[in-house]
Amino acid sequence: MERTNSAVLVAPRRIELQSFPLPRIGSDDGLLRVLATGICGSDWAPYAGTWMTELPPLVLGHEVVGEVVEIGGQAARRWGVAVGDRVVLEESIPCQHCRLCRTGRTHMCDPMHTPDGLRYGLTPSSLAPHLWGGFGEYVYLHPRSVLHRISSSVPIDVAPLFIPISNGIRWIERDGGCRIGDTVVILGPGQHGLGCVVGAGLAGAGTTIVVGTARDHARLKLAADLGADHVVCIDDGPLQEQISLLTGGQMADVVVDVTAGAPGALGDAVSVAGVGATVIVAGSREMVPATGFRPDELFFKEVTVKGVYGHDYMSVERAIAVIASGSMPLGAMCTHTFGLDQVDAALRTLGGEGDDEAVHITVVPG
Amino acid sequence: MERTNSAVLVAPRRIELQSFPLPRIGSDDGLLRVLATGICGSDWAPYAGTWMTELPPLVLGHEVVGEVVEIGGQAARRWGVAVGDRVVLEESIPCQHCRLCRTGRTHMCDPMHTPDGLRYGLTPSSLAPHLWGGFGEYVYLHPRSVLHRISSSVPIDVAPLFIPISNGIRWIERDGGCRIGDTVVILGPGQHGLGCVVGAGLAGAGTTIVVGTARDHARLKLAADLGADHVVCIDDGPLQEQISLLTGGQMADVVVDVTAGAPGALGDAVSVAGVGATVIVAGSREMVPATGFRPDELFFKEVTVKGVYGHDYMSVERAIAVIASGSMPLGAMCTHTFGLDQVDAALRTLGGEGDDEAVHITVVPG
Amino acid sequence: MERTNSAVLVAPRRIELQSFPLPRIGSDDGLLRVLATGICGSDWAPYAGTWMTELPPLVLGHEVVGEVVEIGGQAARRWGVAVGDRVVLEESIPCQHCRLCRTGRTHMCDPMHTPDGLRYGLTPSSLAPHLWGGFGEYVYLHPRSVLHRISSSVPIDVAPLFIPISNGIRWIERDGGCRIGDTVVILGPGQHGLGCVVGAGLAGAGTTIVVGTARDHARLKLAADLGADHVVCIDDGPLQEQISLLTGGQMADVVVDVTAGAPGALGDAVSVAGVGATVIVAGSREMVPATGFRPDELFFKEVTVKGVYGHDYMSVERAIAVIASGSMPLGAMCTHTFGLDQVDAALRTLGGEGDDEAVHITVVPG
Amino acid sequence: MERTNSAVLVAPRRIELQSFPLPRIGSDDGLLRVLATGICGSDWAPYAGTWMTELPPLVLGHEVVGEVVEIGGQAARRWGVAVGDRVVLEESIPCQHCRLCRTGRTHMCDPMHTPDGLRYGLTPSSLAPHLWGGFGEYVYLHPRSVLHRISSSVPIDVAPLFIPISNGIRWIERDGGCRIGDTVVILGPGQHGLGCVVGAGLAGAGTTIVVGTARDHARLKLAADLGADHVVCIDDGPLQEQISLLTGGQMADVVVDVTAGAPGALGDAVSVAGVGATVIVAGSREMVPATGFRPDELFFKEVTVKGVYGHDYMSVERAIAVIASGSMPLGAMCTHTFGLDQVDAALRTLGGEGDDEAVHITVVPG
Repeated sequence: MERTNSAVLVAPRRIELQSFPLPRIGSDDGLLRVLATGICGSDWAPYAGTWMTELPPLVLGHEVVGEVVEIGGQAARRWGVAVGDRVVLEESIPCQHCRLCRTGRTHMCDPMHTPDGLRYGLTPSSLAPHLWGGFGEYVYLHPRSVLHRISSSVPIDVAPLFIPISNGIRWIERDGGCRIGDTVVILGPGQHGLGCVVGAGLAGAGTTIVVGTARDHARLKLAADLGADHVVCIDDGPLQEQISLLTGGQMADVVVDVTAGAPGALGDAVSVAGVGATVIVAGSREMVPATGFRPDELFFKEVTVKGVYGHDYMSVERAIAVIASGSMPLGAMCTHTFGLDQVDAALRTLGGEGDDEAVHITVVPG
Repeated sequence: MERTNSAVLVAPRRIELQSFPLPRIGSDDGLLRVLATGICGSDWAPYAGTWMTELPPLVLGHEVVGEVVEIGGQAARRWGVAVGDRVVLEESIPCQHCRLCRTGRTHMCDPMHTPDGLRYGLTPSSLAPHLWGGFGEYVYLHPRSVLHRISSSVPIDVAPLFIPISNGIRWIERDGGCRIGDTVVILGPGQHGLGCVVGAGLAGAGTTIVVGTARDHARLKLAADLGADHVVCIDDGPLQEQISLLTGGQMADVVVDVTAGAPGALGDAVSVAGVGATVIVAGSREMVPATGFRPDELFFKEVTVKGVYGHDYMSVERAIAVIASGSMPLGAMCTHTFGLDQVDAALRTLGGEGDDEAVHITVVPG
Repeated sequence: MERTNSAVLVAPRRIELQSFPLPRIGSDDGLLRVLATGICGSDWAPYAGTWMTELPPLVLGHEVVGEVVEIGGQAARRWGVAVGDRVVLEESIPCQHCRLCRTGRTHMCDPMHTPDGLRYGLTPSSLAPHLWGGFGEYVYLHPRSVLHRISSSVPIDVAPLFIPISNGIRWIERDGGCRIGDTVVILGPGQHGLGCVVGAGLAGAGTTIVVGTARDHARLKLAADLGADHVVCIDDGPLQEQISLLTGGQMADVVVDVTAGAPGALGDAVSVAGVGATVIVAGSREMVPATGFRPDELFFKEVTVKGVYGHDYMSVERAIAVIASGSMPLGAMCTHTFGLDQVDAALRTLGGEGDDEAVHITVVPG
Repeated sequence: MERTNSAVLVAPRRIELQSFPLPRIGSDDGLLRVLATGICGSDWAPYAGTWMTELPPLVLGHEVVGEVVEIGGQAARRWGVAVGDRVVLEESIPCQHCRLCRTGRTHMCDPMHTPDGLRYGLTPSSLAPHLWGGFGEYVYLHPRSVLHRISSSVPIDVAPLFIPISNGIRWIERDGGCRIGDTVVILGPGQHGLGCVVGAGLAGAGTTIVVGTARDHARLKLAADLGADHVVCIDDGPLQEQISLLTGGQMADVVVDVTAGAPGALGDAVSVAGVGATVIVAGSREMVPATGFRPDELFFKEVTVKGVYGHDYMSVERAIAVIASGSMPLGAMCTHTFGLDQVDAALRTLGGEGDDEAVHITVVPG
């Protein structure tokens, strides 16, 4: 039986290459050869060991782009793909029968909910057929996988951007309700914040403002290249005053708080929201309570705060179309590429322990 | 020149009857004889002196029901009312030209925004024509007033309920997005919480749960009379567990936090929200920051938190129709009536310094 | 091998009982003993032969209520049901992977779209395992079936009303956007029109008006019993005038055109819509073009016309909760019950060839 | 008393210059010197005499751009403008008190509804102070006028495009619900159709297709210049087939029927709508009934048809921001400019009796 390699997280901050047998594919499933897997901020907590104390062995990686190399007849009909097709894979393996799946929220049907607890990038590699994570040569295509075709003309390090771009599109347009001419303020210029800059430009925002810290120099420059009208350093003075100045006192219609989790960020976000604005809260802050957040500001300004949990099916479809159109200079977001034997370095770079100016990092198995 | 009496707040906790000249009515304005004015929780802060330090003399009272006794020709055509008609008055005197007024949010065009800073119940009585508050015999009908006709068949102490009922209808149906069969949890069984019970019943909620404290015995009983399926005492155990038990683990679709302002209430509200739920935040808590509120709960459950600032035009129209239909036992909410010489006692009762079991209090001038 | 009977439509207006083998149930599927199957207006076209010329043998019936008598392990976990549970079955067997399924519109994933063209009540009985229709003793539970549990306390002829009630709830509340106090006009007092009366009552409509013909006497009386405020006979004068009189000139906020397909009905419906109203178009009229419909009326009044194709998952859930609550006198809708050997009579009654006053007709196999 | 000239329509197809006294401006109103007034398709019916038989003398023209030359104190505060400011004027003079005005639909409060029946471009010039139309040197600023400031850097013939651009933005984004990546099909490449092309580009449409006739060669080329991806000639074959080919069978998400009123256009529009699509119906077709429109297509595809009546306040704000940004090559839409003594020629050009390739026509008084 042929075998294949994956990078397994065996303990906090300890990754080792392990080999697994290639699975036998039946009528209902398939096999994907990984071309590239992007790294997401949510990969950090399991790697660093802050997520749960007793972690099983995991192959991380859930921004997967690959080529279908084997596929059963039923699976091919269902997904409309054939051997040789290039696809991206969503991380959830939804149960397809719960209330969330039935109402278009398959992305919320997660390990806590699916009958078998499966999810790409978070399923123990001890569970056959083992190939559940993107940091490997192959990924198993479970019958309940969610696939999208992507053109092979998209550069291989750009393709994994379907995650930050689909997040940005969903958060800004669908969740934030951004309308033509609106003012959008984005707190946090990481890959998801930059995805929101792209989303705001596509949605016709009139003014897009990105807020970062002094350390975000390179990211803020990139934000401007992607279409942000203004970049603001939060250390240059009270944020509310800076935004008031830039908007002539109108403040923002849509605010995104996608900071890495400063407890005061939500208070900041609400402080720059105008009357009737929407504030999007994205990304985990490890259950830390907010500080300096006054519900009265929601009340007096009729502000809405929406928690958002990643992307949904249509936002991935929309993101892929945008990426494939080549209309945006997305390549500049792809700052780092690592091999399968460098997954540890890749994850440390994500965590700020490498190049300070990293934005989107991709593992290319080779 | 004829004169008329109003109860003027001249200093914190000091109310005295003063007489003012009856205004001369022209083509564009009118005069309302007050039949009854309800007391709202927001009357407390100015009365108690916690709202601002240097308060001008004020005639409080903005849940006004009255009879048109004088009206100009243009005003009559514009409002479609005649002498003898019974109407309710919204508190805002909107500018009618700002972006908020132009987009159906006249209730947000408040003293901070109107060119002349006018608003019923909060305009200094020193400003001619003086009659700006409901705790008096007459109220001046400014050309920009917002009136609604109400049938004279509605009992006079019930009519001021157009405020809590319109709030409840708007918060539950429009802002909360309550759908037929939904589970609604209401934190705080005061007049606005009870208005939400009415709103939930009208909107077809499947299960309505009202949460109070041990002191809320009478109010919780009233909630049940108005259609609540369950009442819960927050002192009986962790709220999340109590709601989980009542909902079979499904938790709430719509939560309303209309507590008097406990800093932990928002955290409680979010803890009982189900996946995709909406939490309504209503009523000021004097700018106190929230405690124990973790934004991650919004993120993981895709929960939305909406600040709401009272009622809008259509919710008042809907409330009046419901009240006039007599289909709800609303009379039981009307626990106290005071005369114009008892406004001080009325406000102290609102503030919990009188009958503990007060719900809705009305001042009837004569 | 045990065998079981179903009523097969072998040619237009020719139904005969045939026996089929009971299928062998594996891990992923199940078997349902039919308790009752309601008859829907859409059963008429295949029966009468107006739907398509060359019809395969069909077991009609897609308003299925039954008891799970056999179920595989995976299927039990997925659906959360066990042997002995009572459930209702949606008619679609959605592919679960197309864009419609992924966005909460599984009810639109129909035979034209599913990879295998399956749908309860419209799949040829020649296709194994044969038991695809409700007019039989058993129905096969395909792995992609959509089930909902229903309490066994619901009377067996009332349970199939989950179809008209879920339609009414969805069309009135979600599609029509009915709000508390709105005026709803329903053209057509058949089972779906009456479902809309129920939906309007639950959604808090202020005034519900049902429009029928002189032949609808019994149905209009039933509409009033279910909560309609007014019933109107279209033969008593121009509809627009009748509705204007009843609404004081305000006309309707929500209009439902669920007539059996008169070409002029849409024009009538639009004529009674007020400014900004929504008109719901439900039910096939065999591709006949509308007559007397002037698009300018949509333009001048900013009226919206929405085509709706039955119910979705959540509307069925909502309907079942309403039915189980017993809060509505739904039993009166159940006018006729037939045995499995009387399916032909049942269908002719539906088509108006039997009792003129039939509303909802149920086939009870045993 | 100083006098000023306006072009008065005194009978069908008969326009003559008349002089009127300049009005005395008080505290509450103002005077606008007209810089340019665009011509709208709706000017044709009154000019041609097909609108009503007995027309009073009218100064047509309601796409007005001008400079404030006189303004009262109250008016200046209310509108936030001063002498010398450049503004555009909406055509409606809303009552500000009816249900429509209170709910953000002032554009629907028209002559049928306002207490005094006023509306720019449709109020008899015999009614003092006479200056109610844009085809004159001055326009009277009524206290209830709706003004928007516009930068003086916008070319004077481009500024009146705030009407077609605001229509396009509203119809595509707000009414059509266009989302990033959507396919938009626009039937009719006139000024409003081209406004929709602009709106679709701003809203992030993925594919925009404009449909015209063989006579629309120049307009279709302009559509491509403004960002349309494909232009289609309706004479080249069945529209449904052409759109199917261009969209790979997916058909359109948003369709706009803004043809000059062919009775079959709505049927065409619905035929190219995909599942769940929205069809926008704009512009009067003189009450002619639709032909070939089958309601079943709405039902089977869950298609929504929305009538839209021009622009609202926010869409004009959004349009002005887009125009002022200079980001779109809008100048190419401005094909013709006429003087105040050439209003007749201007209107005949609009009606297709002059240059066939006219798009947007402006009258510049001097």
